[in-house]
Amino acid sequence: MEAIEQRITEQGNKIRSLKSSKADKDVITAEVAILNALKAELKALSPADTVAAAPANKPAKADDKKGKGAFTLKNAKGTKDYTPQEMAVREKIFSTIIKVFKKHGGITIDTPVFELKEILSGKYGEDSKLIYDLEDQGGEKCSLRYDLTVPFARFLAMNGKEYQNIKRYHIAKVYRRDQPAMTKGRMREFYQCDFDIAGTYDAMIPDSESLRVLTECLTELELGDFTIKLNHRKILDGIFEVCGVPEDKIRTISSAVDKLDKLPWAEVRKEMTEDKGLDPQAADLIGEYVQLKGGAELLERLYADAKLGANIRAKEGLDDMTTLFKYLDVLNVTPHVSFDLSLARGLDYYTGLIYEAVLEGSAPPTLANGEKARATVKKGTDELDESTVGVGSIAAGGRYDNLVGMFSGTNKKGQPNLMIPCVGISIGVERVFSILMQKQKKEDIKSNEVEVYVVGLGGVSVEARMKICTELWDAGIKAEFAYKLKPRTQSQWDACDRDMIPFAVIVGGDEIEKGLIKIKDMRSKDESQKGGIEYPRTQMVAEIQSRLAQL
Amino acid sequence: MEAIEQRITEQGNKIRSLKSSKADKDVITAEVAILNALKAELKALSPADTVAAAPANKPAKADDKKGKGAFTLKNAKGTKDYTPQEMAVREKIFSTIIKVFKKHGGITIDTPVFELKEILSGKYGEDSKLIYDLEDQGGEKCSLRYDLTVPFARFLAMNGKEYQNIKRYHIAKVYRRDQPAMTKGRMREFYQCDFDIAGTYDAMIPDSESLRVLTECLTELELGDFTIKLNHRKILDGIFEVCGVPEDKIRTISSAVDKLDKLPWAEVRKEMTEDKGLDPQAADLIGEYVQLKGGAELLERLYADAKLGANIRAKEGLDDMTTLFKYLDVLNVTPHVSFDLSLARGLDYYTGLIYEAVLEGSAPPTLANGEKARATVKKGTDELDESTVGVGSIAAGGRYDNLVGMFSGTNKKGQPNLMIPCVGISIGVERVFSILMQKQKKEDIKSNEVEVYVVGLGGVSVEARMKICTELWDAGIKAEFAYKLKPRTQSQWDACDRDMIPFAVIVGGDEIEKGLIKIKDMRSKDESQKGGIEYPRTQMVAEIQSRLAQL
Repeated sequence: MEAIEQRITEQGNKIRSLKSSKADKDVITAEVAILNALKAELKALSPADTVAAAPANKPAKADDKKGKGAFTLKNAKGTKDYTPQEMAVREKIFSTIIKVFKKHGGITIDTPVFELKEILSGKYGEDSKLIYDLEDQGGEKCSLRYDLTVPFARFLAMNGKEYQNIKRYHIAKVYRRDQPAMTKGRMREFYQCDFDIAGTYDAMIPDSESLRVLTECLTELELGDFTIKLNHRKILDGIFEVCGVPEDKIRTISSAVDKLDKLPWAEVRKEMTEDKGLDPQAADLIGEYVQLKGGAELLERLYADAKLGANIRAKEGLDDMTTLFKYLDVLNVTPHVSFDLSLARGLDYYTGLIYEAVLEGSAPPTLANGEKARATVKKGTDELDESTVGVGSIAAGGRYDNLVGMFSGTNKKGQPNLMIPCVGISIGVERVFSILMQKQKKEDIKSNEVEVYVVGLGGVSVEARMKICTELWDAGIKAEFAYKLKPRTQSQWDACDRDMIPFAVIVGGDEIEKGLIKIKDMRSKDESQKGGIEYPRTQMVAEIQSRLAQL
Repeated sequence: MEAIEQRITEQGNKIRSLKSSKADKDVITAEVAILNALKAELKALSPADTVAAAPANKPAKADDKKGKGAFTLKNAKGTKDYTPQEMAVREKIFSTIIKVFKKHGGITIDTPVFELKEILSGKYGEDSKLIYDLEDQGGEKCSLRYDLTVPFARFLAMNGKEYQNIKRYHIAKVYRRDQPAMTKGRMREFYQCDFDIAGTYDAMIPDSESLRVLTECLTELELGDFTIKLNHRKILDGIFEVCGVPEDKIRTISSAVDKLDKLPWAEVRKEMTEDKGLDPQAADLIGEYVQLKGGAELLERLYADAKLGANIRAKEGLDDMTTLFKYLDVLNVTPHVSFDLSLARGLDYYTGLIYEAVLEGSAPPTLANGEKARATVKKGTDELDESTVGVGSIAAGGRYDNLVGMFSGTNKKGQPNLMIPCVGISIGVERVFSILMQKQKKEDIKSNEVEVYVVGLGGVSVEARMKICTELWDAGIKAEFAYKLKPRTQSQWDACDRDMIPFAVIVGGDEIEKGLIKIKDMRSKDESQKGGIEYPRTQMVAEIQSRLAQL
C-alpha cells in the first residue's frame, strides 16, 4: 500500500511539473488518468476508514511513520555545511597553501578520522576532555582525531623504517568538543593544514625552513601584515629555573605565561601566585623576563644576563636562537618575526623552538583592566572566550622531538626504540577562511567553472542542444544546457547571468538545418553582437577554444 | 581472523580434493581464486603485516611509559593510512573525476562528518546497524555519516529556498561498520565521489547526463572496458506485480533479485521461496523476466509482453527507458550500457532509473554450484563476502525523488513542504584506487614535485645553499637542499635520484665567489654535462625556468 501511496505522490509531482512547464494538454490528461487509476487501486486495497483519512495525494512520509515525532533539522553543534561559494573560497585557500608546501618538497599522507583511543590518550594534557569518543558498539575503543600531529607521530612510529625523514603535509579535519564561536572560525569540526619536517638534521635548518614556509603561506594568502612570535622552550625553562620555580611547577607556570596575549600581566601573576601557589617574588622575576620582546639584539641582552647566561638550559636555547636568526636573515624571514619571551604555547609536547603567527588586524582589543578580561572567561572553563578578543593566532607550531618515541616502545635501558625529531607548522585555516569571507560579497564568488551555456531558440529540440553540448564536452569544454524540453528563452539567459558563464552558443531550428550556430560573449556590453555572431557549426569548438584561451 | 584462517584451510582441502578427483579445470581455477582472495584478506587484517614493515628495532607493541599496559600500535579496524605514493594515485583519481564533474557544471558543497543521529535513522533499512555512533558525552546524539546522499538531502531540505536546483559534487569519507576486505578496497572508512543533479526537470534529461558523466569518469580513469547496467524501479515493480508478488513482499523480493550478480538464479530462487515465502510459481515467472538483458530492442519485447505491457507501473518505466535510450544515443553513451532486468539495487530510496557500473575485468569467477557460493557468505550477515567474487561494481546510482521531502516536514494536508527530485552517481573510488595501485610499481610513483635540488660541493656553507634555494623559491621554483651543515656529496646525488628530481644546481666554494653555478639535467645520460653546465648565478633562475618549460 505504501508503494502505491508513493506512486500517487510521484504521479502528483509529475503532473504538477508538467503543468508548470506548460506541457501539452493531452499529455496532462493522460497522466491525470493514471493518477486516478492509482487512487482507485489504493482505495481497493484500503479498509474504508483509512481511505477517508488518507489525503488525496499523500506524499512521502515526512514525519517518521512510527510517530517518533518531528525533529529539528539542523547541523550537529559546532559544525556547519559549506555552500558552493564558501567551498570556492576554501579551495582557493587550500590550493594556495598546498602550492607553497609542494614548493618546499612537501608530500602528503592521510590518516583515518578516528584512531584507537589509547593512541590519543596522554598527549593533550587537560584538553583531553575535549576528545570525541566513538560509542562502544562491540570492538575497539576509538576516538576522533584531535589534531594531525599525534596521528603523524603514530604513522612514523609504525613506518619508521621507510620514513626516517619526510616533509609531509596533511590537510584534514580534526575534532574538539570545545565551546564553539562559529563566526570566529572556532568550531568543533575544523580543518588543520599541517606541514612538518621529520628527521635527524643539523640544528635549526628545518626549523628555519618551516618559518619560511609559514611566511610564504601567510604572504600568498594576502591576509595583510602579520607577525610570527618566536620563543624557545629551553629558554623559558631556564627562566623558570633561575627565577626559582620548582621543577614540578614548570609546565603549569608555563601555561599561565601562555595567557599573556589575552590577559594583562597582573591577571597572570595572580594565577601564578594565588591559583598555582608560586612564591610572589619568583612571579615578579618571571614578569621581568617574559615581558621582553625584540629581535636578534635581545639575544645579546639575555646572554649578558648574569643568571640566565649561566643557566645550561637557557644557554642551549639561546645558542639555537642565534643560529636560527642567522638562517632567517638568509631566508628573508627576519622582517616578519618577533622574539617574544611571553610566548609559551599550551601543548606539552614541544621541546625546542615554538612560534605563533598573528595578524596585525586581529590583535585583541586593549584591555583597560583585569576585570574586563575576567568577564569574558568562558563558563565552566578557565579559558578566555575568544569571541571577545579577536581572531587570535592564525598559525602556530614548533619542535617536538620526543613524540614519535612515545609510540615506539622502549628498549631494555628504557630508551625509546625509535627517535624521529620533528618540527612543524599548523595553519588555522578556518580563521583564515572567516577573514577572507568577510572581505568579499557572497554574490561575487563564482562557484562553478562553466564556460559555455547552450541556448535554444524557436523550439529547437532538447536533442539538438544536447548534441551541441556533447561536441563541446568531447573537446573538454565545460558546458551546460537547460534540462527542459521547451525552456523559456529568458530563463536560459538568466542561467548564463546567474552563473557568470562567459559564452553562450545559440541555436535556432533554422540554424541547425543550415549547419550554423551563434556565439555570444555574455560579459561584453557590445551591442553589435547582440544576437551573437554566426559561425559554421564545424568551427564552433575551435572558435570557443580560441576565445577561452584569451580569457 | 581465526575464521578466515579456518576458511583458508577448508578451501585448500577443497582444492586438493577437486584436483585429486580430476575436476574441471575452470572449476579449480575459480576455487584457487577464492583461496587467493582469502589469503589477501588475512594479510590485510594481520597485525603481522604491520610488524613486518616496521623497523627491526621496533616492536609492534609499544609499552606506555606510564605503565598503563602495552597496546598494539595499529590503525583502527577497517581503516588505513595512505602513504605519499598512494596519495599521489588517489589525488590523480580525484582530479580526473573532479575535472569531469566541473565540465558538467558541478559545484561542490561540504557537510560535517557527523550528523544528528535522527537525520540518518530510517534511511538505510537493515544496513542501519552498520552506522557508527558517537559516544554520548553530554549533548546531542550524533552518528558518522553513512553516505553523502542523505546529508545532501538534509542540506537541500535546510536550504531549499536557495537551492531549488543544483548540480553538486561531493568527495568525502563515509563510515560503515562493515566486515572489511582491505585489498578489495572495502573498508570501514572510505571515500565516495558523488555527483547529483537536484531539481524539477523534464523526464530523463538529467538522468541521461548523469550517465554521460559516469561514462566520462570511467573512461578518463583508464580502467579498461566497462558496462553500465541499467534498470528502472517501476519496471521491476511492474514485473513483481504481474508475477503475483504481494505488495508487501515487493522490496524484500527486490533485494533478493539484487543478488543475481553474485549468486546463481537457483540460489536466489531458493531465497525467494524458502526464506521469503514466495509462491514458487511466482518465482519462476520472475526468473524469466530478470534474466533478460540487452539494449533498446529489449524495450520492444517488454512493451509487447501481454501482461507487462498492460501494467501501469511497468508502462511508466518503459516510457522513461524509451526516452532515456533516445538521449543516450545523442550523448554517445549507448555503447557502454546494458539494459539488465536483474539489477535491483539495495537502497530503499530509489524511485526510478537505477544503474551500476562494472569493469570487464572485475566480474566474479563463475560459480559452479550453489554450495560454493554459500560457503563464502559472511558470518552474521546474509551478504556474500565480496572478497571471493571480484571487485564488484565500481559505481552506482539512480533517481531518488522523495528523500528531500522526508526531511522537509509536512503541511496541514500531510504533504512534504518541499519536494526536490534528485538523480545521481556515486563512484567507489577505493575500488578504483585498488585497481590502479595494482597496475603500477610503488617505486615508480613520484610523490613529490621538487624541480631542483641544490647540491653543495667542497665545503660550501649551508647559508650559501639556503640562499640559492631562496632565490629559486622567490621565483616560484620547487627546490630542496640538504639539512646538514656538511652533507656528503653522494647523499645529495642520492636524494636527487630517490625523489626523481629533474635538475640539480651545483655550487662549490670557488664558484660562489666567482658568481657562478652549474646546472645538471639529472635525467640525461649525456656524459658531456657530467659535472653540470656552468652559468652566471644571475642567469640561474631564467635558465631553470626555460628548462622546466620544456619538460
